[in-house]
Parts: sequence; C-alpha cells; structure tokens
Amino acid sequence: MARGTAEPRGGTSAPLTPHPDRLLPSGAAERAIARRLLDSIGDLPLVSPHGHVDPALLAADRPFTDPASLLVTPDHYVTRLLHAHGVPLHGLGLGAEPAPPREVWRAFCAHWHLFLGTASRQWLEAELHDVLGVAVQPCAANADDLFDEITARLAEPGMRPRALYEAFDIAVLATTDDPADDLRHHRALAADPTWRGRVVPTFRPDRYLDATSDDWPRALDELAEASGIDTGTYRGTIRALEARRDFFRANGATATDHGARDARAEFLPEDAAARLFRQVRTGAAGPAEAGALSRQLLGEMARMSAEDGLVMALHTGVLRDHHRSTTTRFGPDTGHDIPVRAEFTRALRPVLERFGTHPRFRTVVFTVDETTFSRELAPLAGFYPSVYLGAPWWFLDAPRAMRRFRDAVVETAGFHRTAGFVDDTRGFCSIPARHDTARRIDAAHLAGLVAEHVLGEDDAARVLRDLHDRQPRTAFRL
Amino acid sequence: MARGTAEPRGGTSAPLTPHPDRLLPSGAAERAIARRLLDSIGDLPLVSPHGHVDPALLAADRPFTDPASLLVTPDHYVTRLLHAHGVPLHGLGLGAEPAPPREVWRAFCAHWHLFLGTASRQWLEAELHDVLGVAVQPCAANADDLFDEITARLAEPGMRPRALYEAFDIAVLATTDDPADDLRHHRALAADPTWRGRVVPTFRPDRYLDATSDDWPRALDELAEASGIDTGTYRGTIRALEARRDFFRANGATATDHGARDARAEFLPEDAAARLFRQVRTGAAGPAEAGALSRQLLGEMARMSAEDGLVMALHTGVLRDHHRSTTTRFGPDTGHDIPVRAEFTRALRPVLERFGTHPRFRTVVFTVDETTFSRELAPLAGFYPSVYLGAPWWFLDAPRAMRRFRDAVVETAGFHRTAGFVDDTRGFCSIPARHDTARRIDAAHLAGLVAEHVLGEDDAARVLRDLHDRQPRTAFRL
Amino acid sequence: MARGTAEPRGGTSAPLTPHPDRLLPSGAAERAIARRLLDSIGDLPLVSPHGHVDPALLAADRPFTDPASLLVTPDHYVTRLLHAHGVPLHGLGLGAEPAPPREVWRAFCAHWHLFLGTASRQWLEAELHDVLGVAVQPCAANADDLFDEITARLAEPGMRPRALYEAFDIAVLATTDDPADDLRHHRALAADPTWRGRVVPTFRPDRYLDATSDDWPRALDELAEASGIDTGTYRGTIRALEARRDFFRANGATATDHGARDARAEFLPEDAAARLFRQVRTGAAGPAEAGALSRQLLGEMARMSAEDGLVMALHTGVLRDHHRSTTTRFGPDTGHDIPVRAEFTRALRPVLERFGTHPRFRTVVFTVDETTFSRELAPLAGFYPSVYLGAPWWFLDAPRAMRRFRDAVVETAGFHRTAGFVDDTRGFCSIPARHDTARRIDAAHLAGLVAEHVLGEDDAARVLRDLHDRQPRTAFRL
Repeated sequence: MARGTAEPRGGTSAPLTPHPDRLLPSGAAERAIARRLLDSIGDLPLVSPHGHVDPALLAADRPFTDPASLLVTPDHYVTRLLHAHGVPLHGLGLGAEPAPPREVWRAFCAHWHLFLGTASRQWLEAELHDVLGVAVQPCAANADDLFDEITARLAEPGMRPRALYEAFDIAVLATTDDPADDLRHHRALAADPTWRGRVVPTFRPDRYLDATSDDWPRALDELAEASGIDTGTYRGTIRALEARRDFFRANGATATDHGARDARAEFLPEDAAARLFRQVRTGAAGPAEAGALSRQLLGEMARMSAEDGLVMALHTGVLRDHHRSTTTRFGPDTGHDIPVRAEFTRALRPVLERFGTHPRFRTVVFTVDETTFSRELAPLAGFYPSVYLGAPWWFLDAPRAMRRFRDAVVETAGFHRTAGFVDDTRGFCSIPARHDTARRIDAAHLAGLVAEHVLGEDDAARVLRDLHDRQPRTAFRL
Repeated sequence: MARGTAEPRGGTSAPLTPHPDRLLPSGAAERAIARRLLDSIGDLPLVSPHGHVDPALLAADRPFTDPASLLVTPDHYVTRLLHAHGVPLHGLGLGAEPAPPREVWRAFCAHWHLFLGTASRQWLEAELHDVLGVAVQPCAANADDLFDEITARLAEPGMRPRALYEAFDIAVLATTDDPADDLRHHRALAADPTWRGRVVPTFRPDRYLDATSDDWPRALDELAEASGIDTGTYRGTIRALEARRDFFRANGATATDHGARDARAEFLPEDAAARLFRQVRTGAAGPAEAGALSRQLLGEMARMSAEDGLVMALHTGVLRDHHRSTTTRFGPDTGHDIPVRAEFTRALRPVLERFGTHPRFRTVVFTVDETTFSRELAPLAGFYPSVYLGAPWWFLDAPRAMRRFRDAVVETAGFHRTAGFVDDTRGFCSIPARHDTARRIDAAHLAGLVAEHVLGEDDAARVLRDLHDRQPRTAFRL
Repeated sequence: MARGTAEPRGGTSAPLTPHPDRLLPSGAAERAIARRLLDSIGDLPLVSPHGHVDPALLAADRPFTDPASLLVTPDHYVTRLLHAHGVPLHGLGLGAEPAPPREVWRAFCAHWHLFLGTASRQWLEAELHDVLGVAVQPCAANADDLFDEITARLAEPGMRPRALYEAFDIAVLATTDDPADDLRHHRALAADPTWRGRVVPTFRPDRYLDATSDDWPRALDELAEASGIDTGTYRGTIRALEARRDFFRANGATATDHGARDARAEFLPEDAAARLFRQVRTGAAGPAEAGALSRQLLGEMARMSAEDGLVMALHTGVLRDHHRSTTTRFGPDTGHDIPVRAEFTRALRPVLERFGTHPRFRTVVFTVDETTFSRELAPLAGFYPSVYLGAPWWFLDAPRAMRRFRDAVVETAGFHRTAGFVDDTRGFCSIPARHDTARRIDAAHLAGLVAEHVLGEDDAARVLRDLHDRQPRTAFRL
C-alpha cells in the first residue's frame, strides 16, 4: 500500500450502509423537496442510450464468476486509481500474466479507502450493497471472506444477467458495436421468445474513419468483407459504410458514436475526396492528407445521418494511450486516456452550416472539457434544433461535475436541449447505481431551484421526469 | 412543439407569482441577511452604462403595440431557444415574411415551459408580472386572451416609454451608437424641457475598425460624410474618428464600445500604419494585412481614450453569424453568435504596456469565456488601475453564472475592481428585471460571505451599494 | 483613494474580531461537523513543503521592525491591489526612492476596506489579530496609533522569528534557494544546538535552465564558480547541476522547484544536446534553439529526479513581468505576473512516458489555470503513481478557489493523490493564517460530503488528517 494513507484499523469491518438520502442537499427543507422529486420518478424504468455492455452477456446469460472479474479488472476507473497508488496492472488482472481474481480482490479491498470521495466509490458502494447484498466495507482483513460471499451469491439464479436486467428495470440498453460486427447477439436476443428486453446496437466506425492509423487499411479490408462491397475506392467505402448502417438500423440501431480526437468535419467535392482517398489508401500521402481524409469521412457520416436519421453521438477530446509502454503491455482502455482542451464553435461549423437545421439530422455532443459547456455547447444547443447537449461524461460523470454541468448549461439552453443521462458503462451491474446517482443529482439541482423560487415544484417534477425519460428517448430517437 | 417536452395540461392557467425572495439563499439565516441587504439598496436608482435600447423610443415616446413585438421578436435570447425547439424564425416575426404578432405570441406561449431554468424566464416572468400586470403563466390555451390583455394594457398612458423610464427609476441610460450617427434623438431629448432623464450615447466603431470586412470601404465613406473629413488616408481616417468622438463627447458620451473578435491591438509607427492603410484601402493587400490594420485601429482607439478620457469597453470573443444561411435570410443578431475561447494576458499587453498606468486611460473588459475570470482578468484588474472587470455578460448574464463570476474574481481583485452590472439589453422593459436579478445575486453572494463570517453585514451593505451605484459610475465615468 | 469606494466613517475604529467559525459552512448541522473535524486536527503541527521565507530570518533571529515592512512592502498580493487602486509602488516602500514605513502603513490602512472579500484580507485579519494582538480594523484615522502599537509589540522577545516558529508549531519549513547558494543559513541553523526546528532548502534552478534569457550566460558562470565545474560544455553544465543537487540533498533538500513558462521537456540524444548547447552558449543560435535547450535541461532535471529522488515541483503557466516599465523601476515580483492558459496532457507526456511509473520519480504539479484541474491534472494523477496534484496556488490560494479545486479533482483522483497544502509565502507571519484557512476549507468541504452522506465522519476525519500531514510529507518526501 502507498505510504501516507490511513486505512481504518484492520480486523473490524465497518458497516456498509449507503444512506437513503445520499447526494441530496443537506438542508432539511431543500432535502425534503429533493426527496419528493426523486420519489416522483421512482416508477421510471432505466433508459440507457449509450454504453459498453457486451451483448453476449445477455445473449448467453452465463453467471458472473467472482467479484474481481465483475467489479475490478474490467473497470478502468477502478484500475487506474489503484495503479496510481502503486498496484501494478497485472496485479489487477490485466495483461498476459494476470494475477488470479482472489489476489486482485485482496488488492482492491486493501485500497478501498483510497476511493473515498470518488464517483467510483459511490457506484461501488451501491453495487456491493444493493446488488450483491454486502453489508460491510471492504478492507484487507475481510477480503477473503467477501470474495467467497460474493462468489457464492453470483452463482444464484437471480444474479444472472437476464434476471438482473429485469430487476434493474431497464427499458432499453444500447451497446457499442463495430460496423463489421454481424450483430449475432442482438439478433439472437431479438429472436428469443423468452427475452422481453430491448438491446440495440450502436454504429461505432472510428476504426474506419481514422485514416491516420496504421490499422486503417486492415479495417477497410474487414469492412469490405462484412459488406461484400469493395473498399478500394472512395465511392466503394462510402457505399460499404452506408450498407452497414442500413444493416445496423435493420437490427434496431438508432445512433452512431464517434470518438475522434476532435469534431471537425470536411466536405470536399466527390472527385477531390476520391483523389485524396486514393492517395492515402495507396500509401502515397502523408499524415496531413490522412487527417483531411478522416475529417472528410466524418463529414460523410454527418451527411448519412441527415439521410438515414441515425443520431450522431460525438464523444471527442481525449488523447488515448498516454503512456505507450502501458498500452504495449496491457492494451488500450487501461486508464491513461487523458483529456485535452476541446473546441466546438469552429469545429462543428462545417457540419452545422450544412445540416444544423436539417429536419432529420441530430447530434448529441459530449465533452470532457467542461469549459466548453457554458462557452460553446449551451449556445450551440440553444440555437440549432439538431444539437443536443450530452450528459457530463467519463471524468465528469460524477456528482459535483454533474452539478457544474447543469449550472453551466441550463441558464442558456434550458433543460430540454440536454440529452439526459448516459451511463457509458462497461460494468453491467453498475447501471442502476449510475442512473441513481444522476437522478439524485438532478433532483438535488431542481430542489435547489425550487427552494430559491426559480421554479415551482410541479414544474420541477415534470422536468425531472423529462430528463430521465423523454429527453434521452428524443435525443437518441429511441 | 418539439417532442419530448411536458407542457402542463392546457386549459388551466397556472398562476404567475414571482416570489419576493426568489434567487436569495434557501437557508433561513442566510436568506434573512440577503433580504436585509437587498432592502438596504431599495432606494438606489438604476444605472445602466451599457445597452442597446433605441434612443428613438424615448425621443418619440410612442406606445408599444403588442406583446410579441415587445417581448419576443426583438429578443434574440428568446427567439434562439424557440428556434432550437423547432419554431422557424419567420414564425417569430423575423425576416422578409414574418408571421403576424398574434401568431408569434401563440408560438411563444405554447413553448413557455421550455424556458424553465433559463435567465430569460426570470426576466420574462418579472416583466409580465411587474410591468404588464399579468397574473397567469402563458400557455397555448391562454395565448389569445393574454395577447389581447397585454395589447390593451400597452395602450395606457402609464405604459409609454417615458412614463416607464420614470417608473423604473432609471438614473442614466447609455445607448450604443454608430459613429456616423447624428445623435438626433439624444439631442432631441436633451433639448426637451419636459424630459428629466439622462440618455447618453456610446461610440461603437466596430464597422470602421474591422478592415477585414467587405463593408469596411463603405463604412469609411459614411464616416467621411458624417465628419466632413476625407477618409482616403490613414491620417484622415484617424482625424475623422477623433472628430466623431468629440461630437459624441459633446453629446454626453463617456465610453466607446468594441466588439472585435479579440482584444489585441497593434502600435505601428505612423508611416508604417499609413502604408498599411493605403494597401488595404486600395485593395492591394490580403487578409493578414487587413487584420493587422484592424489591430492598429484598435490601438488608436486606446490612444484616443488615454487622451479624451472616453472609457474603452471591450466586448470580445464571439464568432458572429455561425449559421450563414440564417444570416442571409434573417440578418445578424438572430441567435447564432457563438462564443470562442478568449485570451487577454497576451492580447491586452500592448495596450497596457502603453496605457495601463496612464491616469486618463480606463478600460472595462467583458468576456463570455468564464475561464479567463480567475486566470487572467482578475489578476489584470488586480494590478492595473486602468482595468475594470466587466459584469458577466450575454450568456453569462444569469444567476448561477453571476455567482461563479463573483466567486472567481473577488478573492483576487476584491469587489472594487469590478464595474458593477450592465444590462446590455435591447428590451427596454427588461431593464428593471435584469437589474433586480443582479442585485439579488450580489445580495445572496454577500449574505453567504456574512454567514461564513468572511465579512460583517455593515461592510456587506456598503459593498452592495458600491456595486450598484459607485462602481458603474466610476468605471464608466458617468 | 480611488473614487467609488466606501470607507467606513473615519475616527471610529471598527473592532477586529475574526470569528472562530469563519469559512465553515453556514448551515448549523454542517458547521457542527466541520467544527468537529477542524478540532480533530488541532494537534497537528504545520508542514510547509514550499515557500519563500528567507532562511536568514531564522538564522539571525533579528526582530521585525514595523508593520509596513512586515505586512505590506514584501507582499505582492497586497501591493498589487493597492497599486490597482492608484497607490504608486514607491508609496508602498518599493523601488529606489521608497516612502518611509509609516507612510506606507498609512496608505495601507486608508485602503483596508478595498481588501474585503480577498484572500489577503483573511490572512491579514488573522495576522493582525492572532499574531500581533490588534483588536481594531485599520483605517485612515487609526493608522499612526496602530503603527506605534505594532512596532512596540514587534520589539518583544516573543515576537522574534525563532520564538514565532515555535509558537506557530511548525514541524518543517522548506525555503526556495538558488543552486549557487552556499546554504550558509541552513547550515548555521543545523549546527546550532539551541535550534530545534527544521528548515530545508529547495533547489530552484530556473535561471540555469532558461537558455532564452539574457541572464543565462552569467547564471552558468555563477554555477561554475559554485560547483567548481566548468559549465562551458553541456556535459559540464549537467555535472555541475548534479553536484549542486547533491550539495542541496546533503543539506536536507527533498525537492526541486520549477517556474518555467510551461512543463514541456525534451530528451535529445547526448550528442545532439551537446551540439545545441554549444550553439546557444556561443550565441550562434536563435530563440527557437534556446527554447529547445531549455526544454532539454528541464528533461535532465526529470532524469536527475528519477535518479536522486528529489521531488520535482512544477509551478508553471505564468507570464512574468507583464508591465515592463514597472519591472524596470521596481524589479520583479511586483504584482504583474499574470497567468496564461496552461496545458499538461501533451506537455508532460515526454517526461511521463520515461519516468511516469519510475519508482523514484515524483512530481507535484501546480497550476493557476483551474480549467486543467478536472480536464488534465486529476486524470494524470489518477493514473501515474509519480504525479501528485499540487494545492491551488497563488491566485487560487483562496477559500472559494480551494473549494473549486477539491470539487474538481477529488471525484476523479480521490484525496490521496493530492499533495496537501503549500503556503508559498514570503511572509513568515502569514504561515499559520494560510494553513488555518486551508484547514478550514478542507474541513468545510469534508463536512459537506458527510452531510450529503457521501462519506462518514470518521472517514472524513482520517482524510483531513492525511491532507495536512501525511500527504504533504509523502508528496515532498519530507
């Protein structure tokens, strides 16, 4: 364990009792309002328009095996902070020679107190307590007991993914999928008469649009195979992407998702684009041309969205794989994707000049640079009917950051230009905890406005319901 | 109406009752302090050092005609959000084929709930209730009744602009005027013995300084005509601008106002400037030279301010006319001017190195990029006697944004380096509501500091009075 | 005095009574929690890992002379704001013809109310009341009496620097020192059997690393003299720096401190670096090469830290000496160092790719651009074991800014990736007041989380203790 930290005395397990009024305002009058608001949407099922749950999980419905594989190893919010405190990533179950789950769990429990104050701690407390029935705080002394207790619990029938889907009261769950994916799990679920849920794919074409990447030629080859269309030409590649979008739409998709470094698109004439494509595809061009082609392909995505109505979700502004030697050893998504400054006013202009008032075009814009909320995104969403403000995302998907988001955007854009909450999670069991946190923060925010007589409690209740039901359904056309 | 929004059941009109303690802190003890502070400045008249009211309004004193023309069509805060919810701009009374006022009003009423949480909603509630005597929330069902009711009310003698000016208790109102303007309305008011108010012009020379604009040659021609001085040379143009400043000062102006993209000025030697001017004026130069000339002309404005004492107000950092096809159809100021990132530390250096400690030079700096408040503007205003921090402006002219402003700047610069409140409004009837909001937020902010024992209530009352009287008068030399 | 400010009626001195619960939350329940938390660390001595106290002060132990020389003239937080209100810097005791202390003190007292709301006011109130026993607010009328009263008090034995060091209960105090310094005062203290404190030097090599400065050649000459190593070559300069680091470490140093404009380092091969050095050293290169060499030397500092374990503190992002004519007349550190936008994600990458997971490398990163807290610094410190988040610094070392810091970083990085508080002061007597403010704000922040049931009060107490003891000791290896 890192020096300089105070773990509670080992041996005695502190009780784990998430307070029913957690995250609500501390003043009695304001809390009572927030409590009433929160209760008023207790009947609403969860709408999850963007996330990273593996559809195979629900298609196969196999039980989860142990707490480390469930809660620690796949969650880069958790592994990154343990890594920052000196636990090597292989000790968290990652890489070629991962530690066994029990050891991973021990490391997690020994460092539990280091999560104090983080968003992850809130989610983990709720998952442990509400989903897994754990009644004590993890610590070094109880790690083995907890491991056994949770492992046994996970073997119960009620803890299988489909049973949990029902228990969580999920109305719709969007996954994130590769355009070349055959969507077999989505199709299997749709064909299964015993399955009553709704799991929809999302078209995530980053690999196919990023012509600056070494992986791009292989991606285009895979696209050709999946679509049966030759991707040796610009026109062919565009047609292949269109075909895959059609396939995704036929299987329930309502949105595409984009993780480009920035949001700028280009709109070259077809012949210029074809020439540029040929140069880059044949290796005859440098990084500047490859960058231009990438922006051109993003522009094509916007054009296609205006035609086929798939909502274009933009998740931009992150420098991936900051510590390259960690990527080499442990792969991507291992906790060192770091945000950079974002810019939207100029970057989105080419798309919005073309499609900003187009009746079918719709985009939901996410950022991890909160300076853009009041400066750029709220003003844009406050004018363009096609622009919805995405929820505070990733590092900003946390109570105080969510409050700052609402404070920054509502005064300019109102509540109804925001897209509601997006859990964006890889951890299926964290879905209810994440939605619960978001509901609490929105209820608290609205209660503050009611207490300050900015709006009435009836209006606040209607707004809260919209934020967690109609807004995400509208923004993502669900 | 946009899908995904919850309008209250039509037919029953909800009461419109702005709470007397709105925007004050919700805790009882803190609210009581804020209430006392607010009441302590109840006697202060309104000082409005920057805004966009048409002086003809008061000179002619014609009655307002209807609620749509008063509250909706001219207010781009309102039209932009309705546009974002799918109402076309012509349906809001804009463009060549505008909808008639009654239809505009119907659209506004049907979307009233979408303004919940916005600054505009606060102002509109106060205008409707306090100025127009409306007692119900607008909705689709009562739109026609409200239209008739307000139209009738506007015909009353007490609702004429001059009567309202007195009722609003305005001490001084600054307008924003073109340097070529003959200021006939200001002169008419000054010459009218029945008029006891004070309306002063502000010199807004953007058109004449922006040499990158297609409109620039025509602007210089107009300047030549207005001043009687040839603007074919640099020297002539400078002399013409000086002459118009003198004319404005003789008619009461105390400030100039600048909406350049950024605040950077240049100070070339006269002969280099003259050469640059000649190149740009004759069309022999490119955009880089035109940009340099624009910065040079801004520098001349600073130099003139140091000489004639007109306060230089800088409103920079907005990309105008983001959606060009909307500009083409509906003109400028139609809701799609979008802020961009701002920078002041380096940009202001050339001006401040020359005039930062000059006894006559004074500048008030506004921004819509709130990241500069703590990082750049408070440190600058905390050193340079000539720099005053402008109020949070435009998109930031809202309760929570105002709080963030105070939180960001006071700890570094104190209260007395800020310029107080600026309503910046085109809507005459919104003036008292906007000042009232600002007073409430300042009272609330100070009450918080009193409750945390950062300062005493007597000191807080003195500060609040300064913020809404002496600070704007001092900063703008009113 | 500047117009537009309201000084209390002269003649009657208002009482100076800092409230025992100042800066704690205003709500009763939350305040009670904060009070208990604050009391729970009342036994902790002060750990001061970074500041600018002159070690000669404690080595010589001479009495302070008067309040102006103690509180006004050396404090650029104070002089800058008085300057902004029109007091010339020579009137504050600066420059070649400084006003005498009594006149400086009069100017300060007459402008006392202009500090309302600033962090300086908090510190000054505490220093005046708690350290100097003053019971009234300064004002123009009581300035002379206060001057005499404080001057007399400063002559008492208990007011000597060493007696105050004990009274303040300082555990360790780090100074900031030039690499060529012979550390005679540190050595004198260490050799003095009557001295029981701990004062450690910090290696601050800015002058030697900034090859773009006119002063650089002279700095290298001084380095050669101090180290006895020829600095005519790259290799020699590196060896000289290493030797001085060794000397500092032998005399107790645990850290280096860097005030470069930005944090970007470079890592050229040795021969390329040697060539670059030769070009710049001989004046054969331009500013681009000098900048590259500066980055290279910063990279060498990181490499040395990974080897010798001195913690690398980065204080970047300030444009020094904004108003050059003031620098010319009054020297540096006279209140017009103004922050600029900062960037860390890309800038720190070269260092962190090399040393980010190195077991001996450690860096503490400070910023005056708060936009980087949630966007860049918390994510970096939340992954890299070597990166600690420095306290909010300089303009951000103030109550509300500190709250924003905690709100911005804890949700991502937890409490235990932050380095605790750094007083960064030149004013020895302000040390307890600054630590007290930081403790109050942290107690208040934690009380808010307890009241919102985010964490329990026991956990909060442990965290608060860590923040003010183990975290700074760990981060700075004290």
